[in-house]
Amino acid sequence: MNKQNLREEAIKLHRDNLGKLEITSKVKIDNESDLSLVYTPGVGDVCKAIVDRPEEVDQLTARGNMVAIVTDGTAVLGLGDIGPKAAIPVMEGKSILFKKFANIDAVPLSLDTQNVDEIVNIVKALQPSFSGINLEDISAPRCFEIEERLIKELDIPVFHDDQHGTAIVVLAALYNGLRVVKKENKVDKVKVVINGAGAAGISIAKLLIHSGFKDITLVSLEGVVCKGGKWLNTAQSKIAEDTNLTGITGTLDDAIVDADVFIGVSAPGVMKAAHVQAMEKDAIVLAMANPIPEIYPEEALAAGAAVVGTGRSDYPNQVNNLLAFPGIFRGALDAKAKDITVNMKVAAAIAIAEVITAEELSPTYIIPNALDERVARLVATAVKKTAIQEKV
Amino acid sequence: MNKQNLREEAIKLHRDNLGKLEITSKVKIDNESDLSLVYTPGVGDVCKAIVDRPEEVDQLTARGNMVAIVTDGTAVLGLGDIGPKAAIPVMEGKSILFKKFANIDAVPLSLDTQNVDEIVNIVKALQPSFSGINLEDISAPRCFEIEERLIKELDIPVFHDDQHGTAIVVLAALYNGLRVVKKENKVDKVKVVINGAGAAGISIAKLLIHSGFKDITLVSLEGVVCKGGKWLNTAQSKIAEDTNLTGITGTLDDAIVDADVFIGVSAPGVMKAAHVQAMEKDAIVLAMANPIPEIYPEEALAAGAAVVGTGRSDYPNQVNNLLAFPGIFRGALDAKAKDITVNMKVAAAIAIAEVITAEELSPTYIIPNALDERVARLVATAVKKTAIQEKV
Repeated sequence: MNKQNLREEAIKLHRDNLGKLEITSKVKIDNESDLSLVYTPGVGDVCKAIVDRPEEVDQLTARGNMVAIVTDGTAVLGLGDIGPKAAIPVMEGKSILFKKFANIDAVPLSLDTQNVDEIVNIVKALQPSFSGINLEDISAPRCFEIEERLIKELDIPVFHDDQHGTAIVVLAALYNGLRVVKKENKVDKVKVVINGAGAAGISIAKLLIHSGFKDITLVSLEGVVCKGGKWLNTAQSKIAEDTNLTGITGTLDDAIVDADVFIGVSAPGVMKAAHVQAMEKDAIVLAMANPIPEIYPEEALAAGAAVVGTGRSDYPNQVNNLLAFPGIFRGALDAKAKDITVNMKVAAAIAIAEVITAEELSPTYIIPNALDERVARLVATAVKKTAIQEKV
Repeated sequence: MNKQNLREEAIKLHRDNLGKLEITSKVKIDNESDLSLVYTPGVGDVCKAIVDRPEEVDQLTARGNMVAIVTDGTAVLGLGDIGPKAAIPVMEGKSILFKKFANIDAVPLSLDTQNVDEIVNIVKALQPSFSGINLEDISAPRCFEIEERLIKELDIPVFHDDQHGTAIVVLAALYNGLRVVKKENKVDKVKVVINGAGAAGISIAKLLIHSGFKDITLVSLEGVVCKGGKWLNTAQSKIAEDTNLTGITGTLDDAIVDADVFIGVSAPGVMKAAHVQAMEKDAIVLAMANPIPEIYPEEALAAGAAVVGTGRSDYPNQVNNLLAFPGIFRGALDAKAKDITVNMKVAAAIAIAEVITAEELSPTYIIPNALDERVARLVATAVKKTAIQEKV
C-alpha cells in the first residue's frame, strides 16, 4: 500500500467504525431477574461484599483486568505535541492491542494538562478503578518525573511504554543479534552507541547496563553525552555517570568508530553508509526512527552491517513495542504485582528472544513477528514468575 | 428470589464473570495490513487529520459516543459512603445499561478523593476523552457544587443522575398519574409533599416548579423545609424560597394534610396509613425508598391512595432512573449538545409518559416498564429535538 492509499484507508477505517473500541457487557440483561442481579437491588450485595473484603474488588468487578492508558498528547509517535484529542487514535490502537494480545481491558485517558503535579494527582485519584497504569506519549523530561512519582506513590504497576517497551524489545534483539554474530559472550565488551538521548534512549541505556553491557555511549542532537556537559538535562546528567566511560566527545561521527552496535531512536536518515563502515566487523544496526529509519536496511547491509532491524513492518526484524507491553501487563496483573521491576523487564526481553529457536535464528530473524501470538503468552508467564520470585 | 438467594446469585454472577464490562475492539487485527491501519504507521495520519480539523475527533475516534461515569463513592444506593472501590459494581451496572439501552460506551471512574476542587479539576482534565459526564452517587451538598461548576466550566453535557434522573421519571409518573385521577388540568393547584430534602428531593422540586407545579412542600428528617429554617443547608435555603408558600411548619404529619401527591425519597416505613388517610381524595403516592419503600403499596391502597408507585420492580409503577439516563445522553450526544437543559429534561419526562397510550393508562400502569426498549429511543428523539430547537 503506498503512502497516500494508507492514509485514506486508515482514515476511512476509523471513520466507518467511529473509532476502534467499545465498552460491552459480559452479562445479559434480558429480563427483570437479570436486572435485579446486575443492578439494583442485587448489586448492593456485591458492593457490601467489597466493603467487607476490599481485596475482593478484583474478583467482583472488572478492575483486576483494567489498565488506564494515560497521555497528555505531548510526544505522540513522530508527531510531537499534538494535544490530547489528536492523540486518541494512538491510545485506542494501544487499547485494542492490549485486548487482542493479552485480553486486558484498557481505557484510553487523554488529559488536558501538561502539569506534572496535576497529572500525578489525577492518576493517583483514578487508582481505585485500575490495576495498572500505562503511561504513553508523554514528553521528556516530564515523563521521568511523572513515572518516578507514580511508581513511588501508587501500589499498582506503572509503566511508561515509550521508555521501557522499546528498551525491552531492543534488549531482546541484542540477545539474539549478538548470538548471530557470535559475540554473545562478550556482552561486557561490545561497544554500543545509542543515537537519541530522550526517554527511549536513556531507558535503553539503563536496561542494557542492568543486563551487563558496560561500553555504552549516548549521542543527542547536541552531541555525545558526557559527564559535565552543559546542555544535559537532569536525566541525561544522571545517565552520563554510567555511560561513555572513555570520555568520547564530539558527534555521532566520533562515537560510532569501532562500535559493535548502533541503536537509533532519533531521526530519519542521520546514519550514513560511512558511519556503518566505521563500525566494528559484524555490526548490528537497529535503526528505529519511524516511519523513515536512521538508515534503510539495504544501505546498512551494503555498507557492511551483519544484522539490521528497524521500526517498520515491511523489513525483517521489526522492533515493535507490541512484543512487550501486552505480556508485561498480563504477567504483572496475574501476579498481582505492585510494580514492574527491572528484573521483570529483563525476563520479558529473554522471553521475547527465546521465541526464536537456535535453528530459526538468522540475520533476518532476530526478533519475532509483532503479530506472533505466542509472544505475549510467553512474556506474561516469564514476568509473572519473576514477580512472584521477587515478591513484588 | 428471596433475599439470601438474590445475594448469593448476584455475587456469583459478578465473580464468575470478573465484573460486568469489557473493552473490545470494533476492528479486526489479523495481519500486518490491519495493524498498519489501526496502529503505526496509518494511525499517525488519523492523528494528523484531527490536528487539522479538531472537530473530527468525534468521527475518527470513539470519543463521540463515550461518557464517563464519575463517582467518589460517598452516596451509593442506600449504602452511603462506602468508598470508591466498593462503588464499582454500581458504576459497571450503569455502564452496561448505557450500552444496552442507548449503545453508549460508558467508562466507570471511581475517584479516590472527596475534595470538590480536586473532583472538578480531574473531570475537567478528562474532557478530551469524553463527550459527556454522568455524575453518580456523590453525596449532597457537594454534588450540587460539583455539578454546577462542571456545567459552567465544561463544554460537554454534565448530568448528576441521582438528582435529575429520578426527577425526570417522577415528573413522567405525575403526568400520567394526574391523568388517571383526572387532575391533569390542575397542575398549578395540586398539593405536592416531597419527603426527603437531599439531592433527589430538591431536584424533583425544581423540575416540578419548572413544569408548572406551584404548591410543593419539602420535608426532611429535621422537619418541614421553610424559609429561614436554621438547620437548612445552602441548597435547602435556596429551594425554600420557591416552596412551602403557605409557611407550613412541623413534620410530615403537618405537611401531608390534604396533599394530592406524596413523593418519598427518604427512608423505609416513614409513611403511615394515617398519613395516606389525611391526604386529599384520589391521592398519588410515590414511595421510592429502596428496597423498602416509605409505605408498601398494599397498605397505601388500603388506606385510600388511588395510584401507588415505588422503586421496586416487583410492584407496578416502578420509578427507575433507567427510564431516563440512557435516552437523555443518547439524545444529547446525537445533538452534539453542550449541556442538558431543563427543557431537555422535561421533554424526556413527557416522552417517558407518552409511551403509555390513553387506552393503556391505569392506576397500575402510569410508568413504562424499566426494560421497555422503546423508552430510551423515544426519550433520545425528544431530547435531541429539544436540544436542536434550543441550540444548546
